[in-house]
Amino acid sequence: MSNRILTVALGNDPADLILKNGRVVDVVTESIYDGDIAIVDGLIVGVGKYDLGKKVIDLKGAFVTPGFINAHLHVESSMATPEDYCVEELKWGVTTLVTDPHEIANVAGARGIRYMLEAGSSMPVNYYVQLPSCVPATPFENSGTVMHTKDMILCMDWPGVLGMGEMMNVPGVLNQDTEVMQKLQAFRREGRPIDGHAPCVSGKELTAYVGQGITTDHESISWNEAKEKLRNGVAVWVREGSASRNLQDIIAGAIKDNVSFRRMGFCTDDKHLADIRKEGTVRSMVLQAVKLGVPVCTALAMATFNPAQVYGLKHLGEIAPGKQADLVVWDDLENLKPLYVFHKGEDALAKMQEVQKRKIPSGLLNTVHLADFTQKDLCMAWDEKGEYPVMELLPGQIITGKSFVKGKDITKRLQDGSLAYISVLERHHATGNIGKGFISGYGIKNGAAATTVAHDSHNLLVVGTDAVSMETAVLRLQEIGGGYALASGEHILGTVALDVAGLMSSHGSKELTESLDKISKSAHEMGVPDGVDPFVSLSFMALPVIPKLKITDKGLFDVETFSFIN
Amino acid sequence: MSNRILTVALGNDPADLILKNGRVVDVVTESIYDGDIAIVDGLIVGVGKYDLGKKVIDLKGAFVTPGFINAHLHVESSMATPEDYCVEELKWGVTTLVTDPHEIANVAGARGIRYMLEAGSSMPVNYYVQLPSCVPATPFENSGTVMHTKDMILCMDWPGVLGMGEMMNVPGVLNQDTEVMQKLQAFRREGRPIDGHAPCVSGKELTAYVGQGITTDHESISWNEAKEKLRNGVAVWVREGSASRNLQDIIAGAIKDNVSFRRMGFCTDDKHLADIRKEGTVRSMVLQAVKLGVPVCTALAMATFNPAQVYGLKHLGEIAPGKQADLVVWDDLENLKPLYVFHKGEDALAKMQEVQKRKIPSGLLNTVHLADFTQKDLCMAWDEKGEYPVMELLPGQIITGKSFVKGKDITKRLQDGSLAYISVLERHHATGNIGKGFISGYGIKNGAAATTVAHDSHNLLVVGTDAVSMETAVLRLQEIGGGYALASGEHILGTVALDVAGLMSSHGSKELTESLDKISKSAHEMGVPDGVDPFVSLSFMALPVIPKLKITDKGLFDVETFSFIN
Repeated sequence: MSNRILTVALGNDPADLILKNGRVVDVVTESIYDGDIAIVDGLIVGVGKYDLGKKVIDLKGAFVTPGFINAHLHVESSMATPEDYCVEELKWGVTTLVTDPHEIANVAGARGIRYMLEAGSSMPVNYYVQLPSCVPATPFENSGTVMHTKDMILCMDWPGVLGMGEMMNVPGVLNQDTEVMQKLQAFRREGRPIDGHAPCVSGKELTAYVGQGITTDHESISWNEAKEKLRNGVAVWVREGSASRNLQDIIAGAIKDNVSFRRMGFCTDDKHLADIRKEGTVRSMVLQAVKLGVPVCTALAMATFNPAQVYGLKHLGEIAPGKQADLVVWDDLENLKPLYVFHKGEDALAKMQEVQKRKIPSGLLNTVHLADFTQKDLCMAWDEKGEYPVMELLPGQIITGKSFVKGKDITKRLQDGSLAYISVLERHHATGNIGKGFISGYGIKNGAAATTVAHDSHNLLVVGTDAVSMETAVLRLQEIGGGYALASGEHILGTVALDVAGLMSSHGSKELTESLDKISKSAHEMGVPDGVDPFVSLSFMALPVIPKLKITDKGLFDVETFSFIN
Repeated sequence: MSNRILTVALGNDPADLILKNGRVVDVVTESIYDGDIAIVDGLIVGVGKYDLGKKVIDLKGAFVTPGFINAHLHVESSMATPEDYCVEELKWGVTTLVTDPHEIANVAGARGIRYMLEAGSSMPVNYYVQLPSCVPATPFENSGTVMHTKDMILCMDWPGVLGMGEMMNVPGVLNQDTEVMQKLQAFRREGRPIDGHAPCVSGKELTAYVGQGITTDHESISWNEAKEKLRNGVAVWVREGSASRNLQDIIAGAIKDNVSFRRMGFCTDDKHLADIRKEGTVRSMVLQAVKLGVPVCTALAMATFNPAQVYGLKHLGEIAPGKQADLVVWDDLENLKPLYVFHKGEDALAKMQEVQKRKIPSGLLNTVHLADFTQKDLCMAWDEKGEYPVMELLPGQIITGKSFVKGKDITKRLQDGSLAYISVLERHHATGNIGKGFISGYGIKNGAAATTVAHDSHNLLVVGTDAVSMETAVLRLQEIGGGYALASGEHILGTVALDVAGLMSSHGSKELTESLDKISKSAHEMGVPDGVDPFVSLSFMALPVIPKLKITDKGLFDVETFSFIN
């Protein structure tokens, strides 16, 4: 058997590809040196003086780094399919994604995870999956599926599955919930990485939680929080998503404390396609970190080697003999504009154009299953003499306030836009469950907005001022298999088709972003205030772990007392 | 099942042990913070405020680090058994040893490796083995055993075996020697670490060698050499043994180049017991590195976390929840004197005293098997008219010079001590092989010195001025099962019993060091010059890979022409 990696290294055989005259970033010693990179069979042969190649590209002194790693993200949050999402990441030099398909798992379980994995893996990236650990996220809602330990074990050895996704059930860990412990054990036993999710968890509780096998956490919002997690042996992924932006605080603190960054990396968690298109993900974080004072090679190690080490991806994250040839060529390190992106030694930007998109399984295209309902079923019942709790939507926040409305004021307030009905229709198994309540702060007048993106169970959530508008919006989503809809009376004023599990669009990212822009504009015209994202804000109204008042298909839920109130 | 690591972390159950008021060195962030360390079932529960413990030790502000890791060493070089060796390492805070039992493997193969592993593992340390890859080291000598790929595979899953020991056959790799490639493949396939051995290998040859799966190297003698290896993706173990001292050059260079030390660690390779007793191993390297300008927490990471990461020992090398409670308490970081050493949460310095020494298998106590021989067989035959090649022993070096002696001068030179006979008797299988020649520079008069420590095949090597003395020394070693012997005529003037495989002493380190001192003194009195270690120098005369002239049981070997010359 020929050993080309050896014979090419010795200069006796031609490489498949030689990147001549690069400035090679060694993220291990954190230094830069000049060299030619020889590549064979998708592997880096070595860096040195190499001329004998089937193909030779002169880099003319451009910088070469390992492909970037986005250490934790939910593709579904982009509303693009894995293929469309990867295109945007690749354009900015990300060749490895550690994804947690938590959203689709809540809708479609293992079938959904499998689709994401296969679709992502068809692209010239390393598409890894951390198996969602909390499906459903809480017992206070009905999701499309329940994933027990045995269901997770069945997926564990699928190619591309690394370990377990964020364990959000911190109380479950601390109270030794049987199934939570079983899940942790199943992955610890095999030495698999387990992502944590411990926002603001601290002290003995953090220590106890981490001691059950937690490998990473991406929820820190301050340096003190991140530092405590690091000292507990947890890798900290610094997050810059579309909503949560934690880099400035964490990095500035770390710089001030003069610590080592060796167990820190970058992630987006949730970032919109338009934002990625504009600035990339990891790449923009590297630039920000450098601006804050992180040495550039250290920031590049955070973008590459550090997460590779933590996730046990020994073949990735560095430029050395035998490693996978995932390489990005950059104009310079001040701007980080990719000139070439290679995955397994091939031009990924060219190759991604040729990828035949994976056919979406029909089961994932038909996930809106509603029981029959009447207009009346959609609206909270009330009378003049009653008093009713109201979820207060707060601009730019996912927590809500809690207030009350008197029955005699309801009609007037529905008219002036200061109040609306909010309802959540179970949409997976046509149970007919509908949770109902009131919401303030959304501002819509004479109309309704509906979405099938409603964390974490992704039931159908609708907000509106009247039953007709609400029905119109709901029926549209039922018709198109999920997405966003905006209606006034019997008229549809806007639609975003998210036909894949009611979460992602099969119609391409161009149509997706255009329709998103359009519907957002229409919603604001209907009264949604400027500081409120018309649909993203709604998607968090059904998340019964974030105070104060939330709504699920089971009813209005008081997160402070952890109980339903109607 | 109770989950004490959780309940203790929460403060609800008592820890087995609490180390109160420590200054905890976090080798990941490279920072120090105050805390109490709680320990349960040999594991670190966490660092925080802990009082509830079955046993509590007040550290009064002393520093706590993870147990140190000696990243590459040959226990046999100390001439102590694994138990005795570990005692000296433990006293200075080393709790993990990555050993390569290459010497005993050359004598006794898998049986010898097994003994080392079991004996070492009986001590309160983590005793790991990298399986010797080159037994015998060369085809130019007869060793006790030959270890083929299949023999290595049989040992691969023994508890404590990590991967493959230093692959010294660089030409074998570059020329794709079938068995060398098989061995590399067998370990690469399983993702096992493979130690390298590439002194002065550089450029394309280094790249080609490393690309075959090499994980580490400990042979660098300069920063440039180390840097090139690091850039090739290889972990660099900085070596300070009794003979090879490379720290100053490598560390000073790394400091000057301002690189990251994250893939560098410390090792001794070969260090004598007396030297270890005086200054320790890793501990003295940390102190030296700090003196050269390495930040103390960085040096401590090199001593702990870095090698743990490289060898995939995720449970070691840091102080964090769930990690093994291998901890060293130091008076301060300027002196690094251990106050306590814990292994799996137990006082290792106390526990090591109680360890029942492993019974040495009888096969290892009887390894000197000589065919019958006469006095005449021991000496190179010569006549007055001939001219004969001479190995020139050079003070402080393991390379030799090459000269010639005229037959007519031999008698006179044997008398004045400027010349001696040197012979190597095959001692494993009583084949009767004897290689013979002359040596200069050893200085002995009217006597002979013999040793069964003769790298790498460890045949019986004897140097002397006359056949009687030589016979006396050889017969003594045969009688005691190996070691060192010094004779004059029929009188024995000194003995060091190395009865375990002819390499190590079963009589304890006290007797060993005393007898070593004594025999060394006697040898110098017999004429061995001050700059020459009487027995260590001889042990390298049979190593047919080090120029210029060497001798094996097969004869005198010219390393420059790679051929036997008599």
